[in-house]
Amino acid sequence: MAICTVYTTQSLNSTCSVSKPAKPQLGFHQKQVVFFTKSRRRSGMSSCGSSVITCSAGEQRTVVIGLAADSGCGKSTFMRRLTSVFGGAAEPPRGGNPDSNTLISDTTTVICLDDYHSLDRTGRKEKGVTALDPRANDFDLMYEQVKAIKDGIAVEKPIYNHVTGLLDPPETIKPPKILVIEGLHPMYDARVRDLLDFSIYLDISNEVKFAWKIQRDMAERGHSLESIKASIEARKPDFDAYIDPQKQYADAVIEVLPTQLIPDDNEGKVLRVRLIMKEGVTYFSPVYLFDEGSTISWIPCGRKLTCSYPGINFSYGPDTYYGHEVLHPPISIIYNKKKKKKYQNFNLICPHQVSVLEMDGQFDRLDELIYVESHLSNISTKFYGEITQQLLKHSDFPGSNNGTGLFQTIVGLKIRDLFEQIVASRAATPLEATKA
Amino acid sequence: MAICTVYTTQSLNSTCSVSKPAKPQLGFHQKQVVFFTKSRRRSGMSSCGSSVITCSAGEQRTVVIGLAADSGCGKSTFMRRLTSVFGGAAEPPRGGNPDSNTLISDTTTVICLDDYHSLDRTGRKEKGVTALDPRANDFDLMYEQVKAIKDGIAVEKPIYNHVTGLLDPPETIKPPKILVIEGLHPMYDARVRDLLDFSIYLDISNEVKFAWKIQRDMAERGHSLESIKASIEARKPDFDAYIDPQKQYADAVIEVLPTQLIPDDNEGKVLRVRLIMKEGVTYFSPVYLFDEGSTISWIPCGRKLTCSYPGINFSYGPDTYYGHEVLHPPISIIYNKKKKKKYQNFNLICPHQVSVLEMDGQFDRLDELIYVESHLSNISTKFYGEITQQLLKHSDFPGSNNGTGLFQTIVGLKIRDLFEQIVASRAATPLEATKA
Repeated sequence: MAICTVYTTQSLNSTCSVSKPAKPQLGFHQKQVVFFTKSRRRSGMSSCGSSVITCSAGEQRTVVIGLAADSGCGKSTFMRRLTSVFGGAAEPPRGGNPDSNTLISDTTTVICLDDYHSLDRTGRKEKGVTALDPRANDFDLMYEQVKAIKDGIAVEKPIYNHVTGLLDPPETIKPPKILVIEGLHPMYDARVRDLLDFSIYLDISNEVKFAWKIQRDMAERGHSLESIKASIEARKPDFDAYIDPQKQYADAVIEVLPTQLIPDDNEGKVLRVRLIMKEGVTYFSPVYLFDEGSTISWIPCGRKLTCSYPGINFSYGPDTYYGHEVLHPPISIIYNKKKKKKYQNFNLICPHQVSVLEMDGQFDRLDELIYVESHLSNISTKFYGEITQQLLKHSDFPGSNNGTGLFQTIVGLKIRDLFEQIVASRAATPLEATKA
Repeated sequence: MAICTVYTTQSLNSTCSVSKPAKPQLGFHQKQVVFFTKSRRRSGMSSCGSSVITCSAGEQRTVVIGLAADSGCGKSTFMRRLTSVFGGAAEPPRGGNPDSNTLISDTTTVICLDDYHSLDRTGRKEKGVTALDPRANDFDLMYEQVKAIKDGIAVEKPIYNHVTGLLDPPETIKPPKILVIEGLHPMYDARVRDLLDFSIYLDISNEVKFAWKIQRDMAERGHSLESIKASIEARKPDFDAYIDPQKQYADAVIEVLPTQLIPDDNEGKVLRVRLIMKEGVTYFSPVYLFDEGSTISWIPCGRKLTCSYPGINFSYGPDTYYGHEVLHPPISIIYNKKKKKKYQNFNLICPHQVSVLEMDGQFDRLDELIYVESHLSNISTKFYGEITQQLLKHSDFPGSNNGTGLFQTIVGLKIRDLFEQIVASRAATPLEATKA
């Protein structure tokens, strides 16, 4: 999060109160938390971090990761890559609802934010709102439950049944080491956003979305081009209003664009993928190519790596992201879309200094990825070739031969590293409230 | 030299005979040389090196470097940078002709090929030929004397007096460790060319030449724009016919071009300089940036290096040079311009695989060059920062803040490295004739 929140007395109180769900379940003891951490990332934001209060909340608090994407929930490739990096296999809760959206592994629990739909399919139809619309989602409950889990308290989370379109009876979610909240709105509500230790936005460009949808819905499901266009157009206003703006808050954005290596390509098979990494995020040091902070373009194909048409092009460099949206004077109310909400705060958006790593093209042979991997730095691997090993292991996953697989794996490694750093720093400084 | 010479019986004999100047002088003993080395560079040219005969000629033979450039002779900046790399100061021969063109240091003797003019200024005027025209130069004598020096025999070299335009009485040139032959035609005559252990071509583009000439002749000498244009135009046909084609034989070419960082720049102050390095040359491994053999563009300006307008852009990558001039079928007579010459051979030009390192722009602060130097590999320095030290030491030389100074210094280091490798290889294999 590159936003710096200046709290009113009211919101400070509400943020630092400990929510108490009806049925505290097990696992971790509830902690006495006096002040709740707000200043996780302050380096590089000296003008923004003046009125922030920090506290630590003990060793065993759950690390919370947010993943925003348009593609709905389910067992996404990204989540499979992430849990694979941690070494375990992810499975639905045993003996529970077979239509549960949750995935549980040794370290990680992935919950789908569709479970916080306040309106079921019929309800949305009656009110004329889409699932993208905040009015169809219960952010109060989302906040309370994510906060409870982070504080070591199990919750009874609802289940949205994607098959029936109904809200099923809740399932118990115990606090894991890492909680991933995946879905349409992990960064929409400021309170939920502030609970995130790291946030990712998967940004599939309209051209690629369209090409993919045509591929799937026309070729495989027999839909017409017109109906596909109409369904994308119908979805667009809500997407632009509620989903897309979240990317300004993401610590890492994976942008998926059409290739620039093939002129006027509209097949969407060869992809240009950009990993946009925010600078100044505690426990997260951006990956770089050759020389940190400079601007580089690299065509690895040549005397050492042979590539077939259209080849591979990497680039890397510093940039600003959402910098044009910096507001002057710096303190403005920007979070005012949902007037019904009791919760309100004042945001101050700082210009985002980011590093961008880009890969255009795809690998002919996945084992040649080791050549590329050896030239990347700050990748947080535990041994030489770990990225290549991960991609080879899951070569059947979509995108393993291009930048989507490469960057998803890298983000997975960075999350593991972030988790380990947080655990290590908590071990070093036992539970105490400290003022920044 | 990337040409592979297939000798007729006659030329084989003539190449391997030992020339005997009238007055052998001193220094090194004359060796009994049976076969003369022709196969210095064969790696990467398997299709060309089949009928080559090799021999070694002992430890103390002079290493000969050729430097071709249009700018005439004299104490050029490049030569000053080269001798500085070897550690000594270069001076004219003591007690000799004050208008001598020769420069002597501890290790290096630089002779100017203008001294082999066969026609003096009046003679050229009478015959209507320029100094660029081979008919105004004595290549037989040039070959014989360079060969004699290489074989350890001192020579009586003529002096062309640039002040009077006359041929002065000769001066004695003793065999040095390194002989640099600098001038218009070091690679024109195939026999002289074959004596070179390394060859360099300084290729100043017409635009830059023109900008420089305007700067000097208009601003400083009061010439008119028309007269400058006319003098360049008059020189061009002979330059294109006799000087420019030599660059195909060079092991390294330094190309000086207008910047691409300033649109439509015609000031010629900011330069784009390219170091074109031939692959497969024995004792010479091209410099590279980050990753050998791939294609890279690098803007070092950013978080670590601040640059003022228009910034700095490096690029590096493999390329072909004069590849379009490859002749098929491969054996052709190309050296037939000077019908009067008794000497004739058959050349087989191989396509040139080269590596190109380019720098566009200039350094604001010369000490920041260390940042760039630290990212270059294969630069043959003896200690960290040697390039930066050399450029700082001679910051008053023209081009010290741009690619001309940087690449001249790098070529100087590569020549030192080549010299040391040749000496080491001779020490390892004492005098004996070996057949390849």
